[in-house]
Amino acid sequence: MSLLVTGTIGIDDVVTPTGHANQVLGGSCMYFSAAASFYSPVRIVAVVGDDFPQQFRDSFKQFPGVDLAGLETRKGGKTFRWGCKYHSNMNSRDTLFTELGVVGEAPAKVPPVFADSKYLFLANSPPAVQAGFLDQCPKRALTVADTMDLWINIAKDDLLGLLKRVDGLVLNYDEAELFTGKANTVTAGRHILDLGPRFVIIKKGEHGCILVHRDGICSLPAYPTERVIDPTGCGDTFAGGVMGFLASDKSAQHDPGSYASIRRALVHGTVVASYTIEAFSLDRLKEIKRADLDKRFEDYANMVRI
Amino acid sequence: MSLLVTGTIGIDDVVTPTGHANQVLGGSCMYFSAAASFYSPVRIVAVVGDDFPQQFRDSFKQFPGVDLAGLETRKGGKTFRWGCKYHSNMNSRDTLFTELGVVGEAPAKVPPVFADSKYLFLANSPPAVQAGFLDQCPKRALTVADTMDLWINIAKDDLLGLLKRVDGLVLNYDEAELFTGKANTVTAGRHILDLGPRFVIIKKGEHGCILVHRDGICSLPAYPTERVIDPTGCGDTFAGGVMGFLASDKSAQHDPGSYASIRRALVHGTVVASYTIEAFSLDRLKEIKRADLDKRFEDYANMVRI
Repeated sequence: MSLLVTGTIGIDDVVTPTGHANQVLGGSCMYFSAAASFYSPVRIVAVVGDDFPQQFRDSFKQFPGVDLAGLETRKGGKTFRWGCKYHSNMNSRDTLFTELGVVGEAPAKVPPVFADSKYLFLANSPPAVQAGFLDQCPKRALTVADTMDLWINIAKDDLLGLLKRVDGLVLNYDEAELFTGKANTVTAGRHILDLGPRFVIIKKGEHGCILVHRDGICSLPAYPTERVIDPTGCGDTFAGGVMGFLASDKSAQHDPGSYASIRRALVHGTVVASYTIEAFSLDRLKEIKRADLDKRFEDYANMVRI
Repeated sequence: MSLLVTGTIGIDDVVTPTGHANQVLGGSCMYFSAAASFYSPVRIVAVVGDDFPQQFRDSFKQFPGVDLAGLETRKGGKTFRWGCKYHSNMNSRDTLFTELGVVGEAPAKVPPVFADSKYLFLANSPPAVQAGFLDQCPKRALTVADTMDLWINIAKDDLLGLLKRVDGLVLNYDEAELFTGKANTVTAGRHILDLGPRFVIIKKGEHGCILVHRDGICSLPAYPTERVIDPTGCGDTFAGGVMGFLASDKSAQHDPGSYASIRRALVHGTVVASYTIEAFSLDRLKEIKRADLDKRFEDYANMVRI
């Protein structure tokens, strides 16, 4: 089934306790689409400036499943730039700078050839911008949105409006508590279900994730690894693995948002994110193939087999 | 196979964000043995003062698998008392007071009828005291110790000596980092293996646990629950479920410390701990039967089934 993602493509500066990467390819849409492309073709809708380096454009060729028909290059515009520094335990980070550039202007538009998209992932953006994409994809069968603390703090009404129109929400552990005021993750998840979605996926980084769905609750561990180089993009590639697998999963087509469908897809998201963290930017994802993901999927399945 | 536990039996005062319990039965040995007794007979070696209330002594009758032949009531001695207050998220707590009483005096002795014990769990105590029990159980086939930040800080040499003589160590997530200086849990676990044990079980509370074993690594989630009343004793009942199941597991007898044996047992520990948290003290464990544990075990297995 056709999968479309909207979000940012940008240039990142990342500092971790073990190294740094300057001016590397990043952005939620980029990470998501690279990950999803292992499982399914994926259509991106995003905007960059005409300063976007050719070498980054060439990087897409490493992920041939990514359809660039919705990538707008805006004349005279500046590409989104973001810098961060991770704390010693890699579980938290400080944003060093954010230069919105074209991301602060009018959003990209869904091109007519993408208007029939069935699966829609709204990567982190202002909720009002995310909502604007819904009407551009009238045939959508499953819509999932990501969000972050910034929008919870400054655009909560927009976010509440969006939640009434999506099937699922993805957000971090601490953001679920910030949003709901509930310290218990399951309670926070249920609270969010009361606001509209059929399910919420709460990301806990190294501690895995919890799915709170109207039809069940599931907690899954992360893939345990010592090779932690750069957590940037892990959440987006996790979502990419989830949605990419869902889009490829024939058994889920009749009800892609069911508890069973989402639960199965979460493991694929977990596996692809476990590769993302092993290098800066998309470097590790560029090295691997679907067979590597399937091998680690088996390792993971054996780990939790009871 | 015969299972023996040493540790504290005491009287607790516990304050949580939702309630409080004054002068209730507690202590690591008490929690462990109650949990283990669902799976296997369990021998306790512990000491209380002659102020230990009869009603608490009667509580043992609710866990008929617990053998009290090693429970010493010391004349004129004071029973261990401990008070704590949990923070709003229940993930951390402050100790309000500790009155060691008889726990600060000479430890209890393993009675001759227990000297043939095969499985030994050394619940949290000074490492030198824990080591003293090893020679009293010369037929031990599997020895696992718990520890805490206090001993890491003030008795590290004793702890290092103990680690050379045990098969496994159980400790909390933050204590593993404190002990090893390694923020990555797997790396911290491997570091501890280099100090002697064959395996280490790192407890992460609501985030589950990680087993780092010489023959494999396994991460398992906690059972997701909203019924969080009092986390006291969860770690000890987790260990009780692990060791109790191991002692009952005929397929593990030839190598009870193997990766496969420990991994299987961790799920039982996880399940029994998920009941402990649902009430103060041992109140919830008093209400349930083995069939309740087996039912939740099935729920858990279905949750992580891939």
